[in-house]
Amino acid sequence: MQTFRDRAAAAYDAERFRRQGHQLVDQLADYLASATRGALPVMPPEPPAENLARFPAAFPEEPAGELHPFLERVLAASHHLHHPRYVGHQVSAPLPLAALCDFVSALLNNGMAVYEMGPAATAMELNVLRWMGGQLGLPEGAGGVLTSGGSVGNLTALLAARQARAGYDAWNGGASAGPPLTVLVPETAHYCIARATKLMGWGAAGITPVAVDAHFRLRPEALEEALAAATRAGRRPIAVVACAGSTATGAFDPLEAVADFCERHGLWFHVDGAHGASAALSPRYRHQLKGLERADSVVWDAHKMMMVPALITAVLFRDSARSFEAFAQEASYLFHGQDTRRWSDLGLRTLECTKEMMGLKLYACLSLLGTRFFADHVTASFDLARRFAERLRTSGDFEVAVPPDCNIVCFRHTPAGVPASELDALQGRLRERLISRGDFYLVQTTLPKGVYLRTTLINPLTSDADLEALMDALRGLR
Amino acid sequence: MQTFRDRAAAAYDAERFRRQGHQLVDQLADYLASATRGALPVMPPEPPAENLARFPAAFPEEPAGELHPFLERVLAASHHLHHPRYVGHQVSAPLPLAALCDFVSALLNNGMAVYEMGPAATAMELNVLRWMGGQLGLPEGAGGVLTSGGSVGNLTALLAARQARAGYDAWNGGASAGPPLTVLVPETAHYCIARATKLMGWGAAGITPVAVDAHFRLRPEALEEALAAATRAGRRPIAVVACAGSTATGAFDPLEAVADFCERHGLWFHVDGAHGASAALSPRYRHQLKGLERADSVVWDAHKMMMVPALITAVLFRDSARSFEAFAQEASYLFHGQDTRRWSDLGLRTLECTKEMMGLKLYACLSLLGTRFFADHVTASFDLARRFAERLRTSGDFEVAVPPDCNIVCFRHTPAGVPASELDALQGRLRERLISRGDFYLVQTTLPKGVYLRTTLINPLTSDADLEALMDALRGLR
Repeated sequence: MQTFRDRAAAAYDAERFRRQGHQLVDQLADYLASATRGALPVMPPEPPAENLARFPAAFPEEPAGELHPFLERVLAASHHLHHPRYVGHQVSAPLPLAALCDFVSALLNNGMAVYEMGPAATAMELNVLRWMGGQLGLPEGAGGVLTSGGSVGNLTALLAARQARAGYDAWNGGASAGPPLTVLVPETAHYCIARATKLMGWGAAGITPVAVDAHFRLRPEALEEALAAATRAGRRPIAVVACAGSTATGAFDPLEAVADFCERHGLWFHVDGAHGASAALSPRYRHQLKGLERADSVVWDAHKMMMVPALITAVLFRDSARSFEAFAQEASYLFHGQDTRRWSDLGLRTLECTKEMMGLKLYACLSLLGTRFFADHVTASFDLARRFAERLRTSGDFEVAVPPDCNIVCFRHTPAGVPASELDALQGRLRERLISRGDFYLVQTTLPKGVYLRTTLINPLTSDADLEALMDALRGLR
Repeated sequence: MQTFRDRAAAAYDAERFRRQGHQLVDQLADYLASATRGALPVMPPEPPAENLARFPAAFPEEPAGELHPFLERVLAASHHLHHPRYVGHQVSAPLPLAALCDFVSALLNNGMAVYEMGPAATAMELNVLRWMGGQLGLPEGAGGVLTSGGSVGNLTALLAARQARAGYDAWNGGASAGPPLTVLVPETAHYCIARATKLMGWGAAGITPVAVDAHFRLRPEALEEALAAATRAGRRPIAVVACAGSTATGAFDPLEAVADFCERHGLWFHVDGAHGASAALSPRYRHQLKGLERADSVVWDAHKMMMVPALITAVLFRDSARSFEAFAQEASYLFHGQDTRRWSDLGLRTLECTKEMMGLKLYACLSLLGTRFFADHVTASFDLARRFAERLRTSGDFEVAVPPDCNIVCFRHTPAGVPASELDALQGRLRERLISRGDFYLVQTTLPKGVYLRTTLINPLTSDADLEALMDALRGLR
């Protein structure tokens, strides 16, 4: 009988890995070829219960089956983001090169809470952050961490804001050590901002909404009003969160005006640039971020507009030291010595302990593909969105919610003869039919004027022709 | 001149990916062969500044260089967890099969905040959670989410505890809607528990420490005392957190006694089983988890004892519905319809929005390698730790901090002639020398009796002979 050591030696055997790896590369290359030429449905239409039965909670006691057929089933039942007609959520169609880097990260598993657990990974993370800070125009001395996703990233920034501006030691003293806090947030912000403040124990009033204009951009004039309302409600406002861009429509708030307001009132200025901070890379569109360079903190997801797989979120602070203040802990098994701000131990600055070597994929892609490729992707996708919006606007049977600030376009089909009261239901129905047919994937959102179809043109392979085909498909579905 | 579309087509070209992929598989297989036979230093000894210079924050504008030589530099400057003499932190030496699955996940990038963004991934996640709940003896109806790491996992569980037991709506009403809260936590808990409570605005008093015994296990008799102390301090205790096992020494708290106490006082019972919940898989050691089946919530990291790469943390609730209560949000672009508890939209239950297809690697490894392999790994590594501790104890020149409950062994070298006052400094010095020489990697921790060397026997390739060699190496270093 085989001992566990024998079986472990086989499971870790390099030659077995080599064989399985080569087979997998061929399987994934074939898959990528099909997906990029649109030869499979964008999203398989199976309802949840069916997939649940297909991948049951039952595992054999002894080895069984092979990787290849198992993965064929996984591939078939997954969403295919490389399909040029994937125009849904803000998730990248990953560069194959970046996926290769994540493969390396998975095998190395360098955890990075302390420098020793990921020497190269720590260096790449710190320097990729430095480059990102530079792209945003933040001063020397800016810095922060990479973390697992925009929600955790925004929470990290708000924790630093709390520590810096509450006027009391909220970390050690708790919420009862001073007045309840609030942040001014445009109505259009991502739900994770409200979630972060509720998590910190500020309740629903932890968010003070700031009105937006017809373009869904924060109205600077509304800030004074929001500040007064917060104060009247017995809250201490400590920060303004601005969006670049907002999730539903991709609107870029007027950052310069928000920066002025924050300066005037001594408020922390945080920019949720999860999607849109990448605009800084584009000479044509970076003007939309004017004022960002004055932010105290910024969140930027590379897994949105930088073509790398999730998760890799940069939390950047204008003053790198702030990133140590959000957290403080003792753990002698991890952090030795007296220095609680050691720059090389990233675990001191993040909610996470062990994390992935997330800097590797971005560092490698920037090194090997060059920065212009990323700049051009931003420019091309924003350009494409403007052309698509113009085509919709002049079509006669489509309506654009708002001219796009970036690569998110919300629109609806308004065919002749459909009464206004039925337009909302029509959009939902069209989407359902279209995605279950598998030739496109797009989403929907509810704006003040009603339900709109929502597209994010994030896949570099999506062309004008694909978007024309989308309009035709919608027309044909009625 | 090449347009961006041409360059994008090249970057996403399946045949280019195939070539790079095959080359990478060979590179990684060669690397794995070296690492598993210990043919390279466990951790490269370069100080942080040196690596920072080696991976500078400067990127070319145009494409430059090749993946292979770039990755050679990354591999050389990384920590090699597959080396049999890696006996450091609680991070797995990943199964090559699991790394292949993460590669698939990276290419597919199925985000999973909603079912549509990851149909197969959602099904695998829900069913792998179901299987895990079953292994822990939780009732039918248990469930939860996979999330990015134990820190986020423990926070998620404590948010649910707050919502269930605060006695007021802390989510919407905030901390000021009721008395300040606290949780009873053994002194030995991971720092992320205190961090979670400080994050929620409970301050330093959000943790009420519970004394541990000489074995570093929570003393059940101390719970009443802690409860009284919390109440005297004007705090409302809502939960007890128990460890299985603790980070520094791997001690398993007496869960049955804690369950009784929680039941008696109506407290939420949370178990941080990040490392040790895997003991449930081992017929020989699962008795150490007796009482866990009565927990309200459990955290279990598969990236620790289940040989898969970080991150994959299960947050399991005895009542699956609790996992919706920790969070509540509106986001019409993401969650359509009225049902805020739709079982198939995982984003409703987690701090995260987009996350990785983290269930895939565990689902695949359990399916293809069988469950006994994982059970045997737990048994073998716990056995190995007991033999190692016995060898140290009887050696005459080593001292074990405490007989190990799991696969974490803390010890120190006590050679004849070294006065007790110099033993702490000696351990730190020995560790420094040993890891800079590159033949072992281990860590250190400070216990009440002083500084100890700390090993986690988590790599299935580590043998008794390696641990004997470790003792000899330490002896030779003086």
